[in-house]
Amino acid sequence: MSIERLRKLNELQHAAGTDCVAIVPGANMLYFTGIHYHLGERPIIALLPADPSDRPALVVPAFEAGKAMHGPVQIDWRVYSYLDGQDLQEVADLAVRELKLDGKVIGVEPTQMRVLESGLLSHQAANARFVSAADLLKQMRMTKDADEISRMRRAAKVPERVLAEAIKRIKPGMTEREVAGLFMMVSFEQNPQEPASPPLVQTGLSAAFPHAFAGERAVQRGDLMVVDFGAVVDSYGSDITRTIAIGEPGDEMKHVYEIVKQANAAGRAAVRPGILAEDVDHAAREVIERAGYGPYFTHRTGHGLGLEGHEAPYMVKGDKTVLQPGMTFTVEPGIYIEGKGGVRIEDDMVVTTESGESLTTFSRDLIVV
Amino acid sequence: MSIERLRKLNELQHAAGTDCVAIVPGANMLYFTGIHYHLGERPIIALLPADPSDRPALVVPAFEAGKAMHGPVQIDWRVYSYLDGQDLQEVADLAVRELKLDGKVIGVEPTQMRVLESGLLSHQAANARFVSAADLLKQMRMTKDADEISRMRRAAKVPERVLAEAIKRIKPGMTEREVAGLFMMVSFEQNPQEPASPPLVQTGLSAAFPHAFAGERAVQRGDLMVVDFGAVVDSYGSDITRTIAIGEPGDEMKHVYEIVKQANAAGRAAVRPGILAEDVDHAAREVIERAGYGPYFTHRTGHGLGLEGHEAPYMVKGDKTVLQPGMTFTVEPGIYIEGKGGVRIEDDMVVTTESGESLTTFSRDLIVV
Repeated sequence: MSIERLRKLNELQHAAGTDCVAIVPGANMLYFTGIHYHLGERPIIALLPADPSDRPALVVPAFEAGKAMHGPVQIDWRVYSYLDGQDLQEVADLAVRELKLDGKVIGVEPTQMRVLESGLLSHQAANARFVSAADLLKQMRMTKDADEISRMRRAAKVPERVLAEAIKRIKPGMTEREVAGLFMMVSFEQNPQEPASPPLVQTGLSAAFPHAFAGERAVQRGDLMVVDFGAVVDSYGSDITRTIAIGEPGDEMKHVYEIVKQANAAGRAAVRPGILAEDVDHAAREVIERAGYGPYFTHRTGHGLGLEGHEAPYMVKGDKTVLQPGMTFTVEPGIYIEGKGGVRIEDDMVVTTESGESLTTFSRDLIVV
Repeated sequence: MSIERLRKLNELQHAAGTDCVAIVPGANMLYFTGIHYHLGERPIIALLPADPSDRPALVVPAFEAGKAMHGPVQIDWRVYSYLDGQDLQEVADLAVRELKLDGKVIGVEPTQMRVLESGLLSHQAANARFVSAADLLKQMRMTKDADEISRMRRAAKVPERVLAEAIKRIKPGMTEREVAGLFMMVSFEQNPQEPASPPLVQTGLSAAFPHAFAGERAVQRGDLMVVDFGAVVDSYGSDITRTIAIGEPGDEMKHVYEIVKQANAAGRAAVRPGILAEDVDHAAREVIERAGYGPYFTHRTGHGLGLEGHEAPYMVKGDKTVLQPGMTFTVEPGIYIEGKGGVRIEDDMVVTTESGESLTTFSRDLIVV
């Protein structure tokens, strides 16, 4: 994480025609400043001018200003801080005037910036034009740098340790919910940084609900159980799915398992710079369709992964993103047959200079407990 | 949950001078429509006119429209639905024109509505005035109806069952994180509806960090452990804190425990219609200050609770909200002494016609394991 990201943003802003990008707390704030701010009652706005000779500005509650002054990225902030009870609009007005934003083109995050912040900015910039910076920000964040990939590599290890430990403790008769609780508990034990999100644990899956939450159903001999979970390490996420059989499954589901395993392998093998995101979907889906299970693979093959659990690109027909080295995403084909059970195998991939590497290294063989 | 809430909103809008309130997915959407919508990439906007003879309108993705048509509240929606790829602005424009919003006063949620939605609404309403509806919405949601209190009563029971079960399984030598994992697991077992949020589990607390997350510290004989968690039942939350001693504590911390217990009792006893939110804080704080521990009680006495885990009113000096029957909030005084440990006791209160009732009924005596 470094000032280089702001320099790159300067360049891209010139190309996109914005004079300044305004960022509120969330993944983009973390990406550019390294700071975990909360999108709450007290507004925080980072104003990042296109011109590299202009200093970035931060509108921030006084008690939160220290995080920026001593943040991991050395930014020469102009700080516009406010105390509870102070006229916040006056503080924002000052920032807007000093950055000369009136009449300018301001890029914003349309699904993140709220009326609270846009109202503060537009008060002294009635002639500014607010445009979406979503594509510009997506373009930067999709391709991870070495530091980000290192974090994702470490994040990918955590659920592998959790899985190895938790499968030792699964017993027939536990409910899906109890298995989910077990994974939560082991996740707490294994990851010294962040509380884990609840895992998805499902048996007897139907194609209609491949991602339903863990339920009250007791795990029985002959069941296939899909377990989907992840971890966050240094703000970057991992995502893994493995399928666990309670006792040896029947021949049909063994066959289904092999097809999903081949589809996962085909999706991963397709990854290389220059192909499209939808090509990865196609490669995995083709295996399942050729085996006659196409209608039972009801979701996309994968999604981008990084600061957010789901982000661009999406491995789905219609996503024409050209893969570049450093892009990271999941490959997670599945087949779900009502009453018989489901199978999904999910790995986290990074595009390398020549192909793709799976950050997930846990065995893809069926786990039988 | 019923249409009555929309009727009340009609009245309050007339008093507040708004012509329409625009609501996006979140707690207010759930409050008025009973629908769980997600604030995501695809905008959803409910337009609730002040005039009761005007039908409410909903801008919504086509695949989400069914939730509104078959929702728990019988609203005669005008639905403006859109498909992926369709010109969303055209759909929003039609809604804005048919509701004749240009030139009107539109109340919005400033900390919830995003630039995405406000941009869609203002395109055909350049002369509309957007104002904050926060106070109006807060005013309605603060006072719970019988259905809401019934949900909160059930929500309050869940963590009591979890606590009773989990304390049987706590052993010296477990880390705070392992204890948190244990609570997560038991929460999964006990609550058939919603994944629990991670509990706060802390030993050796300092006044500077009364709400820090569970850490790597192993729980030792002589420790006091503060455990703060909750549950959500039918969308309404509960919040409980109890303090668990690992073996008998020393005389000083026994004394501290008694003071916090008295402060909790004083805060609860103060509750009745007509007093101010800050009076509850004062009643609890006075006990701790008189005992000489004022500087070690570093947070407010409580917060409102309902559809959101923290909502108005706040039990803190300066909150002049006049308590009314049906208001719900926590009473959670604490004392935290660096190196010696912390104590907090938290209950969920509802204001009754004459006093207050604690929805939390778990014993407030020190738990020794």
